[in-house]
Amino acid sequence: MHTLVLLRHGQSAWNLENRFTGWTDVGLTEAGQAEAASAARLLADGGYDFDACLTSVLSRAIKTLDIVLDGMDRLWLPVTKSWRLNERHYGALQGLNKAETAARYGDEQVFVWRRSFDTRPPALAPDDARFPGRDRRYAGLTDAELPRTECLKDTVARVLPFWNDTMAPAIRSGTRLLVAAHGNSIRALVKYLDAVSDADITELNIPTGVPLVYELDDSLRPLRHFYLGDPEAIAKSVAAVAAQGKAK
Amino acid sequence: MHTLVLLRHGQSAWNLENRFTGWTDVGLTEAGQAEAASAARLLADGGYDFDACLTSVLSRAIKTLDIVLDGMDRLWLPVTKSWRLNERHYGALQGLNKAETAARYGDEQVFVWRRSFDTRPPALAPDDARFPGRDRRYAGLTDAELPRTECLKDTVARVLPFWNDTMAPAIRSGTRLLVAAHGNSIRALVKYLDAVSDADITELNIPTGVPLVYELDDSLRPLRHFYLGDPEAIAKSVAAVAAQGKAK
Repeated sequence: MHTLVLLRHGQSAWNLENRFTGWTDVGLTEAGQAEAASAARLLADGGYDFDACLTSVLSRAIKTLDIVLDGMDRLWLPVTKSWRLNERHYGALQGLNKAETAARYGDEQVFVWRRSFDTRPPALAPDDARFPGRDRRYAGLTDAELPRTECLKDTVARVLPFWNDTMAPAIRSGTRLLVAAHGNSIRALVKYLDAVSDADITELNIPTGVPLVYELDDSLRPLRHFYLGDPEAIAKSVAAVAAQGKAK
Repeated sequence: MHTLVLLRHGQSAWNLENRFTGWTDVGLTEAGQAEAASAARLLADGGYDFDACLTSVLSRAIKTLDIVLDGMDRLWLPVTKSWRLNERHYGALQGLNKAETAARYGDEQVFVWRRSFDTRPPALAPDDARFPGRDRRYAGLTDAELPRTECLKDTVARVLPFWNDTMAPAIRSGTRLLVAAHGNSIRALVKYLDAVSDADITELNIPTGVPLVYELDDSLRPLRHFYLGDPEAIAKSVAAVAAQGKAK
């Protein structure tokens, strides 16, 4: 049996401000740092340990991972950072307040942009300062790989090669992986692992800062999965994530 | 011209307690974290930027690097951790207070152990709990690579393959490297780069938390090197390092 742990970063500055973040590189709040520290305790208390770590190239995931590794006395573990684990790119919505956007376009349109499987938010204009092609960290990407906007289907499409080329071979060879990533890159992995339908994945919410443990058989099929920690607190966190897109 | 930046970790708990640390995995003090944050500001203000980072598998160097990358908004840079950049292994002296050891063995013996090029401190016994072979992070090392004690000559011998196999090829290909490491692994690199004699290297002290910039020509020969920051503060820090081995 193999164990894989997925962890959504703790609360970020823009989670708090209820803004569409996507590839914007915002930091963790104090609460987000505390969530990461608490994830470290849950993992250590549960007897979990790791051989390697994967994360995105966005600070809020990397910082979450750093805090977890520090708390577990595992700063020395190798860490691989990949843009393929980044949050979904929210296109021209990045930076907008979710409640304001909902008040303007309606709850339903925002829900569609946030949660439909294959409807993309409005794309960035070619000269938009937010275009990832202007950011040195994405210099290695081809033009086709550089997103102007993404629906979850697009995110799944760029996360899966990372699963196939990096994660699956590592897990098969016995490497215990800890993955610190984002709501939608984790949904992409969960959709693939549990064969969640395009419809059902839109209703699945990943709480911030709570370790999600997958136990996989030798063919990497999930035997079961569960969150670590207090179920009531987790349900509350999931509900908070689900409510973010609603107008106040 | 190539630029290479070497950075000794900020003050650690055992620097403060004046104990022989070596491969013991102690954390940074508050002052050490502040030194790292200040190094980040010096690098950013000086217009330095990097493409990749190297560090040891010891928390005080990794944490220093994490703080620098956070301060420079460069958490996304790739980081490679190698035991070859670890501090010199201090053998059976690890954990002993430097002043107490000096009072017992005399300043001169401690100075020889600390600063002679080829005299090893007493070795760890085979069943010593401090033997690195008991630590999972060194599981990939051969028995010959696992130190029981090291003189600086030994440290140079295990740092140089890392220079030849990892650092030099990266620098040649245009990668701007930031190396967060330790007093003696940095002395090993400096000795090699500047062809410092076995005698002179014993008097060279590396201050904590101060970026040391090397400018190298196309053959990776140093054109010049200098510390970033206030020369007076650096001189004070160097003197403090030099004084550590003395009995009070």
